[in-house]
Amino acid sequence: MYPDVIQQLVVKNDSKIIFLVMDGVGGLAHPDKGGTELQVAKTPNLDALAAKSSCGVFDPVYPGITPGSGPGHFGLFGYDPLTANIGRGVLEAAGIEFKLTGRDVAIRVNFATSDTAGNLVDRRAGRLATEENQRVCAKLRERIDLKDMNVEVFIEPVKEHRAAVVFRGDNLSGDLEDTDPQKTGVPPKAPTATSEEGKKMIPLVTKFLEQAHKILADEPKANTMLLRGFARYVPYPSMEDRYGLNALAVANYPMYRGIALLLGMKLHPITADIRTQFEAVKEQIGNYDFFFVHIKYTDSRGEDGDFDAKVKVIEEVDSLLPILTGINPDVMVVTADHSTPAILKAHSWHPVPVLLRAKYARVDRVSAFNEIDCIAGSLGRQPMVNLMPLVLANSLRLQKYGA
Amino acid sequence: MYPDVIQQLVVKNDSKIIFLVMDGVGGLAHPDKGGTELQVAKTPNLDALAAKSSCGVFDPVYPGITPGSGPGHFGLFGYDPLTANIGRGVLEAAGIEFKLTGRDVAIRVNFATSDTAGNLVDRRAGRLATEENQRVCAKLRERIDLKDMNVEVFIEPVKEHRAAVVFRGDNLSGDLEDTDPQKTGVPPKAPTATSEEGKKMIPLVTKFLEQAHKILADEPKANTMLLRGFARYVPYPSMEDRYGLNALAVANYPMYRGIALLLGMKLHPITADIRTQFEAVKEQIGNYDFFFVHIKYTDSRGEDGDFDAKVKVIEEVDSLLPILTGINPDVMVVTADHSTPAILKAHSWHPVPVLLRAKYARVDRVSAFNEIDCIAGSLGRQPMVNLMPLVLANSLRLQKYGA
Repeated sequence: MYPDVIQQLVVKNDSKIIFLVMDGVGGLAHPDKGGTELQVAKTPNLDALAAKSSCGVFDPVYPGITPGSGPGHFGLFGYDPLTANIGRGVLEAAGIEFKLTGRDVAIRVNFATSDTAGNLVDRRAGRLATEENQRVCAKLRERIDLKDMNVEVFIEPVKEHRAAVVFRGDNLSGDLEDTDPQKTGVPPKAPTATSEEGKKMIPLVTKFLEQAHKILADEPKANTMLLRGFARYVPYPSMEDRYGLNALAVANYPMYRGIALLLGMKLHPITADIRTQFEAVKEQIGNYDFFFVHIKYTDSRGEDGDFDAKVKVIEEVDSLLPILTGINPDVMVVTADHSTPAILKAHSWHPVPVLLRAKYARVDRVSAFNEIDCIAGSLGRQPMVNLMPLVLANSLRLQKYGA
Repeated sequence: MYPDVIQQLVVKNDSKIIFLVMDGVGGLAHPDKGGTELQVAKTPNLDALAAKSSCGVFDPVYPGITPGSGPGHFGLFGYDPLTANIGRGVLEAAGIEFKLTGRDVAIRVNFATSDTAGNLVDRRAGRLATEENQRVCAKLRERIDLKDMNVEVFIEPVKEHRAAVVFRGDNLSGDLEDTDPQKTGVPPKAPTATSEEGKKMIPLVTKFLEQAHKILADEPKANTMLLRGFARYVPYPSMEDRYGLNALAVANYPMYRGIALLLGMKLHPITADIRTQFEAVKEQIGNYDFFFVHIKYTDSRGEDGDFDAKVKVIEEVDSLLPILTGINPDVMVVTADHSTPAILKAHSWHPVPVLLRAKYARVDRVSAFNEIDCIAGSLGRQPMVNLMPLVLANSLRLQKYGA
């Protein structure tokens, strides 16, 4: 209901919206550091911006749910992550900018090594060199043939031992379990369906694997493959369709570029560092309505459990922030797709701070951008899927509802 | 969707969760006492715990709704009280630990006294002695016969003038109005249906009442009965089914024991006082995952309108709290099923304070456990049905959602 009403109210104008997403920036207090990563980091620019903004804390999905990157970002852009959950295979294919269609099932592949008895000895094929991966994929692509099953197959290398396989045909299903047994010393699992629809896929997947194993038999490392994250691609309405927004993603990591592509954003070429990312926004400001700027390393350092390094990334972003604020966009948002507390070394369920700066944002008393101060902000605590309607409202892109 | 997703994410581990429920503890400021019951009570242990916890205020059902004990507790355990509202008859039967089945309609009975004209003179049969009630129920049980209607009937005494009747058969409905006219000087109301399905019950209920009135005709006090809270029993998925939690209820009052039973909890034998309740948790900590500890007298003193006595109960709980905190559970929650402000002498719609202590709980600046301080907590204001997902997350019993 709510998303439908929002979509009906949308109007276009020439306002500019910048979404600065510090991946996993939400944290927890470190027992020896005197606060969370955001509290400990020296962030004079973020704090000054918070003082002029509406602040709040938002649950990426719903309270208690720890999101993967897919649901985390879907929520950010106003797509309900409970209904629009995206499969791992689709994310993998999107991450290499493969153009999926509504007839596709995408699968994430790990090349692996098995012994003569067929038991796995290395689930990552010795972290195969990417060039080897490309060679192996070319060989498979040339010789795999599923035409008699009325299915087209695409085999695309990713990095190291990872690849993406896409089946294209009518009435395909993604309802299959991973064939990866998650351990060595045993053979890959046979394809298994999780629904009646999935059962119809078994002959296709079995035939694909039989052909692939023959083709790979003489490979020294990549002599088998594990299929993971089977997912049918259901196209999402784009940001343009839903919000009338011409959006640019300034993101350097495949998964986030993939998500942006799935939502109809254009992709900026990969940039060298955060400074060049921010400068890219400045250069492109006349050409797009909406800018998704993705900072990866806050999440990476959180997953490493390196509190101090995460603080440093936050401080680097803060020091470069004037490049973005200097553009003076109509709406500026700073937030995260989820928390990745360094003390937990993993994504977590904790809500993330949100800062929304706009001419008509109701400024509250929050003057520090962190998880604890933002609790007292004028946005309160909400599910993240509510943020995009607030952004549209603040950019005066939503008409009045009802007479 | 949200509850379904939570259920899909559940994993088991050996964490321990304690839920301390101070029934009706939420209050309102008394004009002469300088605060709410929780603010006025000296609670050094609760306050110290709050200082190390995530705090918030939760709406038992939704804003403005004053819950009965059923919906209040359903929300606590993550069962949406708007969709899983439980009938009064089912609560009454569960409270005497009657084992309901999916073919049952349960009814709460008041024995009453009527005059020779059939008009009620006492709606509680002079608060019949429980022993008399047992005798009357035995007499009814022996002689009531609904076999020709393909219905089995159970008649169980509760306390004083109260009993429970259960009809067991196919396609029974609970869609009937109370026959209690809520006043004397008039006869009991005739059975009236509130739906088409309920209409099919009229012959059964009429026949049951005709037989009962004949059997009771010679009783000096209990010569009639009022039927209340007709409710078909729809079995709920248990805490084990939904959360993988092996739960123990340490509750001394029938209704709460009944609710626990309906959700698949085991029941600890009734204990003498709050100290023995808490010690029971300590003794049983190795045998269960989840402990529901129910304190009744905060609610009772609130309903009495006795502000000072409610304060005293809170202080007693506080003084004994170290027995529970000394167990050092992985997740400790202190909250209530609803508010019962002494100045209102009744359940109310006001949200209740929540304290959640866990290793990875985001500690906020709240350092006093009461309705006003907890507003500034990191949990914000939420519907109570969100608490259980947060508890599961904090006990690391929820996997990541999506890739």
